[in-house]
Amino acid sequence: MPFVHLVIGLALLEFFLFGLAVARARHRYQIRPPATTGHEVFERTFRAQMNTLEQLVIFLPGIVLFAYYINPLIAAALGALFVIGRALYFQGYVKAAEARHVGFNLSAFANLALLIGGIFGAVRTLIPHV
Amino acid sequence: MPFVHLVIGLALLEFFLFGLAVARARHRYQIRPPATTGHEVFERTFRAQMNTLEQLVIFLPGIVLFAYYINPLIAAALGALFVIGRALYFQGYVKAAEARHVGFNLSAFANLALLIGGIFGAVRTLIPHV
Amino acid sequence: MPFVHLVIGLALLEFFLFGLAVARARHRYQIRPPATTGHEVFERTFRAQMNTLEQLVIFLPGIVLFAYYINPLIAAALGALFVIGRALYFQGYVKAAEARHVGFNLSAFANLALLIGGIFGAVRTLIPHV
Repeated sequence: MPFVHLVIGLALLEFFLFGLAVARARHRYQIRPPATTGHEVFERTFRAQMNTLEQLVIFLPGIVLFAYYINPLIAAALGALFVIGRALYFQGYVKAAEARHVGFNLSAFANLALLIGGIFGAVRTLIPHV
Repeated sequence: MPFVHLVIGLALLEFFLFGLAVARARHRYQIRPPATTGHEVFERTFRAQMNTLEQLVIFLPGIVLFAYYINPLIAAALGALFVIGRALYFQGYVKAAEARHVGFNLSAFANLALLIGGIFGAVRTLIPHV
Repeated sequence: MPFVHLVIGLALLEFFLFGLAVARARHRYQIRPPATTGHEVFERTFRAQMNTLEQLVIFLPGIVLFAYYINPLIAAALGALFVIGRALYFQGYVKAAEARHVGFNLSAFANLALLIGGIFGAVRTLIPHV
C-alpha cells in the first residue's frame, strides 16, 4: 500500500498548493474575504479548487477500496493519472473556462475507474461464487 | 466490512450523480463557469450538491469508526439510511428550498448516529473498565 | 489508534457545530436558501465553515498516514492542535476577517506537519535503506 499512500499524499499536497494559488489570486485581485467573487481570474481559480475538493471526496475512499479489493499498484497508477489530470485541469481553468475540459476528463476517468472498481470488488466479496 | 464498503461506494456514486445534475442544470440554465449563481433552480441544485459534500466529510470517517468500534452491519444500515435521506434531500431541494427538510433530517440523523457511535467506541476503548 | 480516532471524531463534531452556526446565522440574518450571500456576518460564518471543509479533506487522510507511518500519539497531539486552531479560526473569522489568521496558521501548521510526515513515512517505506 505505500505507493497508494504516496499518491494520496501527493494529491493532498497538490490540493494544498491549489489553496495557496487561491490565496495569491485573492491578494493579487484584491478580493477581500469573505467575498468569493469580484474578478474573473480569481473566480476561476477558486472554482478550480472547489471542484477539486468535490473530486477528492470521491477519490480518497475510491483509491483505498480499489487498492484493497482489486490491486494496489493499478490503484496507485490510476491515482497518479488523477493527480496529473487535476494539475492540467487547474492550469487550464485558471487560463480560461474552456481550457479545463482535458484535465477534467482525465481525472474524472481515473476517479470513476477507482470508484467503480472498488464497488465491484465489494460486491464480488458479498457474492462468493461470482 | 464489505457491506460498509458497498454503502460507501453507493454514497460516492450518488454524489457523483449529483455533480452530473449540477452540470446539466448549468447547461440548461446557461450558467457559464465559473459563475455559481444566475438561476434559482441551478442555485438550489448546486447548494444541494455542496451540502452533500459537507455531510460526506463527516459520513465517510463516521461510518468506518462506527463499523470498527460498534458493529459493521448496523453501520451499513445507518449508511443506507444516509444515502436514501440524501436522495430525498437532493430531489426535494431541486424542487423547492422548503422541500429539503425531510431528507436533510433523515440523513443528518444517520450521520450523527454514526459519528456519536464512533466517538463513543473510541472513548470506551481508552477507558477499559467502562 | 483510539486516540487518533477520538481526535478525528472531535474534529468532525466541531465541523458539525460549525454547520449549526451557519444555519443559525442564516436564520438570524434572514439569508434564504439557496443564497450564500447577503449579510457580512453570515458570509464570514459560511466561509469559515467552507474553509474548514477544505482543511478537513487534507487533515483526515493526513492524520491516519502520520499515525500509521510515524507515531499515533504525536499524530493525535497534532490533531488536537488542529482542532484547537480551527476553533480559534472560526471564532475569529465570525468576528472579523482579520481575526482569523492566528487560528488559521495554527491549524495549517498542524495539518501540514501531519501531511508531510505521512508522505515522508510512505517514501521511507519505499526506499528501505534510508
